[in-house]
Amino acid sequence: MKNVFVIGVGLIGGSFALDIKKQKPSSTIYGIDKNETHLSEALNLGLIDEKSSFEELNKADLVIVAIPVDATLEVLPNVLDNINDEAIVFDVGSTKEDICLKIKEHPKRRNFLAAHPIAGTEFSGPSAAIQGLYKNKTNIIYEVEETAFKLQEKALKLFSDLGMRIRYMNPKAHDKHIAYVSHLSHISSFMLGKTVIEKEKNERDIFDMAGSGFESTVRLAKSSPAMWTPIFQQNKTNVIETLDEYISNLKHFRQLMENGDFEAVYNEMATTNHIKDILNGIQ
Amino acid sequence: MKNVFVIGVGLIGGSFALDIKKQKPSSTIYGIDKNETHLSEALNLGLIDEKSSFEELNKADLVIVAIPVDATLEVLPNVLDNINDEAIVFDVGSTKEDICLKIKEHPKRRNFLAAHPIAGTEFSGPSAAIQGLYKNKTNIIYEVEETAFKLQEKALKLFSDLGMRIRYMNPKAHDKHIAYVSHLSHISSFMLGKTVIEKEKNERDIFDMAGSGFESTVRLAKSSPAMWTPIFQQNKTNVIETLDEYISNLKHFRQLMENGDFEAVYNEMATTNHIKDILNGIQ
Repeated sequence: MKNVFVIGVGLIGGSFALDIKKQKPSSTIYGIDKNETHLSEALNLGLIDEKSSFEELNKADLVIVAIPVDATLEVLPNVLDNINDEAIVFDVGSTKEDICLKIKEHPKRRNFLAAHPIAGTEFSGPSAAIQGLYKNKTNIIYEVEETAFKLQEKALKLFSDLGMRIRYMNPKAHDKHIAYVSHLSHISSFMLGKTVIEKEKNERDIFDMAGSGFESTVRLAKSSPAMWTPIFQQNKTNVIETLDEYISNLKHFRQLMENGDFEAVYNEMATTNHIKDILNGIQ
Repeated sequence: MKNVFVIGVGLIGGSFALDIKKQKPSSTIYGIDKNETHLSEALNLGLIDEKSSFEELNKADLVIVAIPVDATLEVLPNVLDNINDEAIVFDVGSTKEDICLKIKEHPKRRNFLAAHPIAGTEFSGPSAAIQGLYKNKTNIIYEVEETAFKLQEKALKLFSDLGMRIRYMNPKAHDKHIAYVSHLSHISSFMLGKTVIEKEKNERDIFDMAGSGFESTVRLAKSSPAMWTPIFQQNKTNVIETLDEYISNLKHFRQLMENGDFEAVYNEMATTNHIKDILNGIQ
């Protein structure tokens, strides 16, 4: 893996660049980004060795596509058109059905591995990239059987070198489950932030009274709208389903309070407390 | 402050005990708790020096009431009945209107200071107590003018010694604002946990796909129902108002998605992104 191309030099792509360079110091990391400022920033930060372009993709051994999921739909077929027969390309998107469908019939389908590393922070851009982001994190792989054997092997070896756990899943199941454990969390957080900001025009009051609990629940409201809008768009049906269930649970809780049934309010929380045991498994 | 009584030797009371003992090694910390197991645990953990009871309160210089807010309503008048004229008593509850009303006419009203330290974790019980919990945290004080001068001074000196910032507020305003920046976060978190648990019967899937974002938004769903139920009960009107606004914002977001208006979805998030600047102020 001499020539590594990272398309999208933000948090996710930039962090891959850092880890790969550390693992394989002899490799050259080429950066491609439609945002010229980000590209220069990535070069200055040492995330990439050289600025590059689609025309140079034919010399790539590995291509990482780490851009918003709408851009991935647009860009991935061109990437596959431009690479050589030995190159492996993987994406990192938080939606999987549309992308797998999009390149299903592409002549270079077997050069592509659909992936979703469950890693990140609420920050974005090249300056958000950090070394070791992927250590002990899960990487979910989709339709692995559609990727050429030796290229599967190459990619999986890389993920393993970076310290990742591998899981396999089908794109449809991914999009359904991820709506619950990721996409819904982001909406709940954004709307919580909105509700508080709307009410508390005097921000000083928020500042003084808010504790770490509030900070924790609204942390995701710092996330990039440019990244999240196309995710919600591509996973619209599943996300709306989770939202309906969430809203219905909130309305039920509100009704119990309205009725003064605080024994039931207690039970709602006691039942959910069991999340402790589940969360102990995360990390 | 030789004799310090802590009523409720859990996370909040136990952490005060640890900090005070460190500040004033010559003081004796007496623990009172209706849960005998907790009381023994607190003694074994070194949070308190001695088990005690209401009968001994007359020798207290300082009494900290750190129990659920429904129990505080019940217990505080008895505490005031039992203390000597020089003792200062403060509470730590997350609701303030009911408690201030409850002891408004008590003959020892001037021995009481209503307080709400904005500090804590999602854990509870004596084993959750930690040293330094209050350092750089805000402590909000209510109706300070109702407390005797020299007792105000004594309490404020203690809070300052523990590294706390002081703010003053009236109980009604507190209950209204805190519903937004704390109580609503807890409900959003509990209901998010409920929604996901209900859907994901196979917990292995949650474990594998959930990242730190999910963990962050459901962290508060680990909180103690025994503590939170009476808070929601006492602050019912304000909490229902925040829930109505939150549900309305979620429904609006859902409708924009349903309509396919993803430009508006983007704007919803972009506007709320501004929460970054507010949160930068929170520790």
